[in-house]
Amino acid sequence: MSDRTKILLPEEQLPASWYNIVADLPSPPPPALHPATGKPVTPSDLSALFPPALIEQEGTTEREIAIPEDVRSLYRLWRPTPLYRARRWEEVLRTPARIYYKYEGVSPAGSHKPNTAVAQAFYNRQAGIRRLATETGAGQWGSALALACNFFGLECQVFMVRVSYEQKPYRRALMETYGAEVVASPSMRTNAGQQVLARDPECTGSLGIAISEAVEVAAQDPHTNYALGSVLNHVLLHQTVIGLEAMQQLALVGEEPDIVIACTGGGSNFAGIAFPYLGRMLRGGRSVEIRAVEPAACPSLTKGKYTYDFGDTAHRTPLLKMHTLGSSFVPPGIHAGGLRYHGMAPLVSHVLALGLIQAEAVQQLDAFAAGVEFARAEGIIPAPEANHAIAGARRAALQCREEGRSRAILFNLCGHGHFDMQAYMDYAAGRLENFDYPEEEVAMALAGLPAVPAD
Amino acid sequence: MSDRTKILLPEEQLPASWYNIVADLPSPPPPALHPATGKPVTPSDLSALFPPALIEQEGTTEREIAIPEDVRSLYRLWRPTPLYRARRWEEVLRTPARIYYKYEGVSPAGSHKPNTAVAQAFYNRQAGIRRLATETGAGQWGSALALACNFFGLECQVFMVRVSYEQKPYRRALMETYGAEVVASPSMRTNAGQQVLARDPECTGSLGIAISEAVEVAAQDPHTNYALGSVLNHVLLHQTVIGLEAMQQLALVGEEPDIVIACTGGGSNFAGIAFPYLGRMLRGGRSVEIRAVEPAACPSLTKGKYTYDFGDTAHRTPLLKMHTLGSSFVPPGIHAGGLRYHGMAPLVSHVLALGLIQAEAVQQLDAFAAGVEFARAEGIIPAPEANHAIAGARRAALQCREEGRSRAILFNLCGHGHFDMQAYMDYAAGRLENFDYPEEEVAMALAGLPAVPAD
Repeated sequence: MSDRTKILLPEEQLPASWYNIVADLPSPPPPALHPATGKPVTPSDLSALFPPALIEQEGTTEREIAIPEDVRSLYRLWRPTPLYRARRWEEVLRTPARIYYKYEGVSPAGSHKPNTAVAQAFYNRQAGIRRLATETGAGQWGSALALACNFFGLECQVFMVRVSYEQKPYRRALMETYGAEVVASPSMRTNAGQQVLARDPECTGSLGIAISEAVEVAAQDPHTNYALGSVLNHVLLHQTVIGLEAMQQLALVGEEPDIVIACTGGGSNFAGIAFPYLGRMLRGGRSVEIRAVEPAACPSLTKGKYTYDFGDTAHRTPLLKMHTLGSSFVPPGIHAGGLRYHGMAPLVSHVLALGLIQAEAVQQLDAFAAGVEFARAEGIIPAPEANHAIAGARRAALQCREEGRSRAILFNLCGHGHFDMQAYMDYAAGRLENFDYPEEEVAMALAGLPAVPAD
Repeated sequence: MSDRTKILLPEEQLPASWYNIVADLPSPPPPALHPATGKPVTPSDLSALFPPALIEQEGTTEREIAIPEDVRSLYRLWRPTPLYRARRWEEVLRTPARIYYKYEGVSPAGSHKPNTAVAQAFYNRQAGIRRLATETGAGQWGSALALACNFFGLECQVFMVRVSYEQKPYRRALMETYGAEVVASPSMRTNAGQQVLARDPECTGSLGIAISEAVEVAAQDPHTNYALGSVLNHVLLHQTVIGLEAMQQLALVGEEPDIVIACTGGGSNFAGIAFPYLGRMLRGGRSVEIRAVEPAACPSLTKGKYTYDFGDTAHRTPLLKMHTLGSSFVPPGIHAGGLRYHGMAPLVSHVLALGLIQAEAVQQLDAFAAGVEFARAEGIIPAPEANHAIAGARRAALQCREEGRSRAILFNLCGHGHFDMQAYMDYAAGRLENFDYPEEEVAMALAGLPAVPAD
């Protein structure tokens, strides 16, 4: 151990490969199914939306996937990201725990999302694609893909949920500064959007509608593909660079985490930091507790059903086996927009079902209280999503205090909150609220799940 | 030279001392004068506003001032900051120049300002002060001082120009999250504010009024001091940590800059990166061109008069010998709020008068065009102030292309633009304009300058 505040890794030690947890799992994850046939989807089912390299990564069982040199070269603009020892926060908490956090907010777009955006843009460019279409809610994913498309000379079309488009003009300005076209969704550009607007001209949009619009654009134009910012195996794969770096950084100071913590929405930042540690444990290495922290208002892992469901509200995706609150469930309007997703990455769901990780839920006010305490101790203003990981780390640190144990806690600070200050204003003014678990809505949504032969 | 993108310095190599250029100047800078007597100000004249350690630093001729360990410990939260080689931007510019930039936007408040804010809070705390009062326009300085006061358990009162208070609620939210009290200025809290409001109840405020309010609060309360974010010698001193780090980082890759560039408002980020290089040259070391870049709308260095003038509009400060457009001059409303200052740090003015540095002016639209080009190449969204340094570096790089010379350019990227996206939206929408040099207003303001015996 050293007395350093930041543990930096020279960019020569940027990982050369991503890590694929599928290679080390005791059983393979259940496959995605075609909703019409109930049969596993084939690569050709996906070829209208994704380039061959990503489809291959989606199904591969190889342990290590080499990171292309063009992607590594762009990673170097912000990677390796710093690993911090939260010394000042430890003092505030009066905990014997050693708290470390990996800070992904140093990326140009401000979160972990560019780790996969840059890779996806590269493989699409390699396949001769000219444009990527995607959806964004709070805007973290849209800005990451806008940045990545700009780097590779691809056009980028972002369908942004209309209410966010109007409430978050600065996120939109960020995407436009990177050269993306941002369209308020529902729009008149697609049949999906037109149908919604015909029924409800004032519709403020939803992630489900925006996904439908982006998928429609990609499916109809051979030069346009679709890009997703979480949930899928290849997205989680690209994020493992986070955990692989953290391992090297902690080794530099002779440390090993006892507990690894991250927030979960679609599951990608969680998998990014946790899967390399989980994989090492599965291969007989050091044991580690892994905790996923989700919002109490949208508790797919702690309250959802592990079953086949659609990835989107409009039911245009393959069926995925996952912890779900039902694809028609619309989560309450918490400020952590990146965690408002009815389902969960199939790989994260699978390792929870196997008992390899734990899950816990945090209320919105507790998340913000922890985030403000952290900001005052460490300086960094966290994204509302990251406040859930902070609340989880705080809980673990206080447990160490109660038990008088000096354990090492590692958590992922997945992004900064510079574009989320309205949430902090609302919190300070007492305008934020907790949400009870929406039991009835979830029950209704789950009752409407599709019948699947394989389930 | 290496092929690295980022050059990192381990935190063990954080400088142990700040560098004081006064020790190496061929002639001392003219002293600040008391406006009533025309005599140099004494330490006791300043003691109502500043703690003894800062008053001593204001006048010292020592070359190296040790950085207190408590300050270094906080610096480690973000320092040493990374030094980047702008490889992708070099390609865009098709220049043989090697462009390096020091990135100060990684500080929790997003700019170089915490380098001095943390030091000022430390010395005030050491002197038993309980509260700091200050003014802020665009908000970079206010957020830095809010952060620093929070670290040392000091209260912080920020008088924020009312128009910014209303237009930039997220900057305000940042300061409040760090625990500061933010007051719209003019306010009813002070006589200065009351007088302004009595004349004009709708007054939207100015930096001059806000300074008057903060100074009044500090002068009247023995437990409250005043803090300034630029201009004064001790502020420039604290910023030299930037250039001292850059020297070490370039040495790691066997490089030396031929040209050093920064933007100038009050002069502190410029002095921070440039003075260590200038001092080395004055001691017989390597020759380097040093260029200050200012907005064409507020061109104190290129068009101002080098004479004694007040630091504030309300004429409550000592008289400072500096390049000034006249203390009653109100600069046009460019988006680079941090550069809208009628005067210039006396030390920067002095080295310009000695012919040791060069100055150039940049129009607003050219600054934003350069900033967007840079953002698309390097990812980082710069602050509008920093866009002036980028435009200066661009000019130098294109000059290298014309001349076919591979020179090394180092510039200071003093902050990110995450809280300035409105400016980027306005630029993209064609709502930003250039400003002609306001010749008549400046002439009028200069005609009204005080007569000073010593001038």
